[in-house]
Amino acid sequence: MSAFQDFYPDNVAHCYGCGRLNSHGHQIRTIWDGDETVTRYTPRPEHTAIPGFVYGGLLASLIDCHCTGTAAAAMYRAENREMDSEPAFRFVTGSLQVDYLKPTPLGPELEIRGKVKEIRGRKVIVEATVYAEGIATARGEVVAVQMPDSFVR
Amino acid sequence: MSAFQDFYPDNVAHCYGCGRLNSHGHQIRTIWDGDETVTRYTPRPEHTAIPGFVYGGLLASLIDCHCTGTAAAAMYRAENREMDSEPAFRFVTGSLQVDYLKPTPLGPELEIRGKVKEIRGRKVIVEATVYAEGIATARGEVVAVQMPDSFVR
Repeated sequence: MSAFQDFYPDNVAHCYGCGRLNSHGHQIRTIWDGDETVTRYTPRPEHTAIPGFVYGGLLASLIDCHCTGTAAAAMYRAENREMDSEPAFRFVTGSLQVDYLKPTPLGPELEIRGKVKEIRGRKVIVEATVYAEGIATARGEVVAVQMPDSFVR
Repeated sequence: MSAFQDFYPDNVAHCYGCGRLNSHGHQIRTIWDGDETVTRYTPRPEHTAIPGFVYGGLLASLIDCHCTGTAAAAMYRAENREMDSEPAFRFVTGSLQVDYLKPTPLGPELEIRGKVKEIRGRKVIVEATVYAEGIATARGEVVAVQMPDSFVR
């Protein structure tokens, strides 16, 4: 199944978190599951905080890119358009808030689930929760902003 | 000059952001500059958001580890103790908030400057600003929490 990130135009598909063209990065993939969005990602052994637990900065990164991807997908849905239709939507992060609820075990695949809270003009507010083995370990919210054309070189 | 992270006990020095024993990680180093704290870090070419700009997840990570390091250092100062004295302080992140003020150019060394806002029991609230070529591009706040002993395996 195609992920949201498969539709990012090539010139904005290099993000370390979610760009399919960044071979060094996380290359996360996000899909719809009803009205929620889902990303699955297995941290690498070096993504350590305290030994045995996942680095919080990685969780922030996953939440960030999951939410900007969700924002783009939500805008296509709001316009009743397919994700391969023009013009393409691409969002950047205006702000990011993460609450670490409990330590996230390093090893299992993580599931990040997102919900669109609000679409307001060029902004989309998305909340996301990280689950490890079914237990919520971190929760975040992103204010995603439609990328200004001036960002693309 | 020794950095705060040089004093982290070996068993909690593997963090991807700031652990001196994590050779895959960022290995940031933070020092005092008067009442402020300073970290300098040059992103790698793959730490891209949109080409030419730094990945926001990296900025969140830098702010996160800069602030937990600052929290530890602030607690030693509050107790009028040297950082090589026992017991060692090590903080984890309770919550992280980042506002992206403007795009951060990829290339120049970044400077992260932190200030302790409040020490409250086992919590320290630290704010940090990321500068690129002297211009503030992101601002964050971390609620750092003294690590429970149960975290160490």
